[in-house]
Amino acid sequence: MTTLHSIYQTRRKKVAQVLKHRGIQAVRFMDFESMRNPAIRYLCGHPGDAILIISSDEKAILVPWDVNMAEKMAFTDLIIPYTKFGRSSIAATRSVLQELAIPGGSKIEISETTAYPDYIDLVSELEAWDFICEKGGIDSEILKMRAVKDEGELEIYERASALTNYLIDALEQKVRRGEIATELDTALFIEKECRMHGAEKTGFDTIAAGPSRSFGIHAFPSYGSGPFATKGLSILDFGIVVDGYTSDVTMTFAKGPLHREQEKMLSLVQQAYDLAVEACKPGIRSRDVAMLVDDFFKEAKMTMPHSLGHGIGLEAHEAPGVNIRDDNDAILEPGHIITIEPGLYHPEFGGVRLENDVLITKDGGQVLTSSRIVYL
Amino acid sequence: MTTLHSIYQTRRKKVAQVLKHRGIQAVRFMDFESMRNPAIRYLCGHPGDAILIISSDEKAILVPWDVNMAEKMAFTDLIIPYTKFGRSSIAATRSVLQELAIPGGSKIEISETTAYPDYIDLVSELEAWDFICEKGGIDSEILKMRAVKDEGELEIYERASALTNYLIDALEQKVRRGEIATELDTALFIEKECRMHGAEKTGFDTIAAGPSRSFGIHAFPSYGSGPFATKGLSILDFGIVVDGYTSDVTMTFAKGPLHREQEKMLSLVQQAYDLAVEACKPGIRSRDVAMLVDDFFKEAKMTMPHSLGHGIGLEAHEAPGVNIRDDNDAILEPGHIITIEPGLYHPEFGGVRLENDVLITKDGGQVLTSSRIVYL
Repeated sequence: MTTLHSIYQTRRKKVAQVLKHRGIQAVRFMDFESMRNPAIRYLCGHPGDAILIISSDEKAILVPWDVNMAEKMAFTDLIIPYTKFGRSSIAATRSVLQELAIPGGSKIEISETTAYPDYIDLVSELEAWDFICEKGGIDSEILKMRAVKDEGELEIYERASALTNYLIDALEQKVRRGEIATELDTALFIEKECRMHGAEKTGFDTIAAGPSRSFGIHAFPSYGSGPFATKGLSILDFGIVVDGYTSDVTMTFAKGPLHREQEKMLSLVQQAYDLAVEACKPGIRSRDVAMLVDDFFKEAKMTMPHSLGHGIGLEAHEAPGVNIRDDNDAILEPGHIITIEPGLYHPEFGGVRLENDVLITKDGGQVLTSSRIVYL
Repeated sequence: MTTLHSIYQTRRKKVAQVLKHRGIQAVRFMDFESMRNPAIRYLCGHPGDAILIISSDEKAILVPWDVNMAEKMAFTDLIIPYTKFGRSSIAATRSVLQELAIPGGSKIEISETTAYPDYIDLVSELEAWDFICEKGGIDSEILKMRAVKDEGELEIYERASALTNYLIDALEQKVRRGEIATELDTALFIEKECRMHGAEKTGFDTIAAGPSRSFGIHAFPSYGSGPFATKGLSILDFGIVVDGYTSDVTMTFAKGPLHREQEKMLSLVQQAYDLAVEACKPGIRSRDVAMLVDDFFKEAKMTMPHSLGHGIGLEAHEAPGVNIRDDNDAILEPGHIITIEPGLYHPEFGGVRLENDVLITKDGGQVLTSSRIVYL
């Protein structure tokens, strides 16, 4: 437990330094159903609904919805039940700032996702302090911190990848043996095995889309009772969560005889994937990697309707971005873990996507997971 | 398909009337990973990431992330792929407002959950229009519309309740027969059966918490491979989604011999539940129902650490609120579907919660689901 405690203290120390540097006395994070923010789990271990306030002198107070859970999982200087404030975030904020003895007139940063009317209410009700809500502030700093995995996180990803790879191999075997024949079989196998092996949950709704539905980037519903891995192209996109951190991989199952167009899509996606993984190196803009794939597909007169990839961690999608957007200025660094997931989709012929998780090291991209196109 | 089309048109007509009444020319909704808004599905059928703009003259344009899905599921006047705007919400907004020929200077309402910095960016980049972002606006109107279920929605809830009740009975039987013995068995049974019977998915992560973990209101992780329904108190909280709408029920399994404290908790929760259901009548403030239970527990020197209930629908938690908060001014109306879910929790003796879905009719509360405390 001392180790966990010290991990959170180290992270909070960094946050406090950023606050000091920005001339800010405290920062407030909120994690609720209407707006999730894994920063709270990242900074104190508490995985659920709560308010966390950290001062620039490194004090941390948690206001959790479930105080029993907080007492088991949270490492902070003080825990105050949210019920004490009638579940009013403004009342809780006032009281915690007073408890931390933050002087009137101090700058308090709040998350850049705070809704406009909530910000206006907060500012007008707590006039004693000066609330800052802006892009490029503490949220961005924490996203950058989270993007570069520390030793503890890399160790978690070793375990998450091993479990993911076990599932990938088992799924291929079970499909080949005919033991998995429906979308439901596929998804339930993952759900069961991941929990049996200690995963917290799946990282997101498993997408298991048989040939008639794989044209959708994110099939809806994400799985049903229909056939899987029958003639044509089936997509399986899943992740499992170990100690809060998710993996994210996509397998494509291709069962022949295939149409020429399907073969072309499979070949192009594999080539794009190889191209992208090869291009992942520290110091490279992730946008340039994504452009490479975009150009490659363009030459084949194809278009990929989604991003090439994204960072993974406490969220299924986090920094760094891996896409061709003009505003993507991310530069790959050692410790980043990103997905590379080129895909092509056709309303009639179905979809192909190949996705693995790639750790950026000083030498280049190290592929952690073993997802692949399975030819049946 | 004509029927679906007309359902969405009727709902959009109401929205257009509200807009006209408020002197607003168009409203923009956004549904993305960072901020879900089921209003888009409610108003046009599209279930995924998208921007929807509706004008006061009842025109609707959808900008979906997945255009293939939109073409199958959305009913709007026009669909424009999000990729056309480089996935910039501001560029999409500008273009759609131009397409709808909304004159400069018009008032455009945006969701009250819009982040403060995003609002500032929007206002400064699209100076031609006057963007309104306030509480009590169109979002509230739509939440009120959604709270009162229409005929189509009541028919969906008949099916959702029937499937939920089938699961409740099957779960009790399987536990009694020893066919379900772990948290994992419990959750996977629900996952499998609900999809086999055509549910889209579970309404939220099923919470199956055996005696050692049931003290948590929302156990973490929500289920694992540990024992379920063994000696003591186990909680099972689940919902299933039919055509977008979720049920939400909680069973408690009590296996003796029980401690006196556990028996007391079980008895109090059952009494509180009966009290609350009896009190559900149109014209009654939901806060008064919640206060009744609060007072009842207070007399027994107990505290319930969560709300008595909440509305359900396209979201697991929606209007009307059913809680003792000062700002809860909801009045129960025919067509509301709410949960009644009193619960008590003890770090040592575990938790008890009993939850069913209650339709408010002109005659009172009609309990749709058949969840119960199961004594083993």
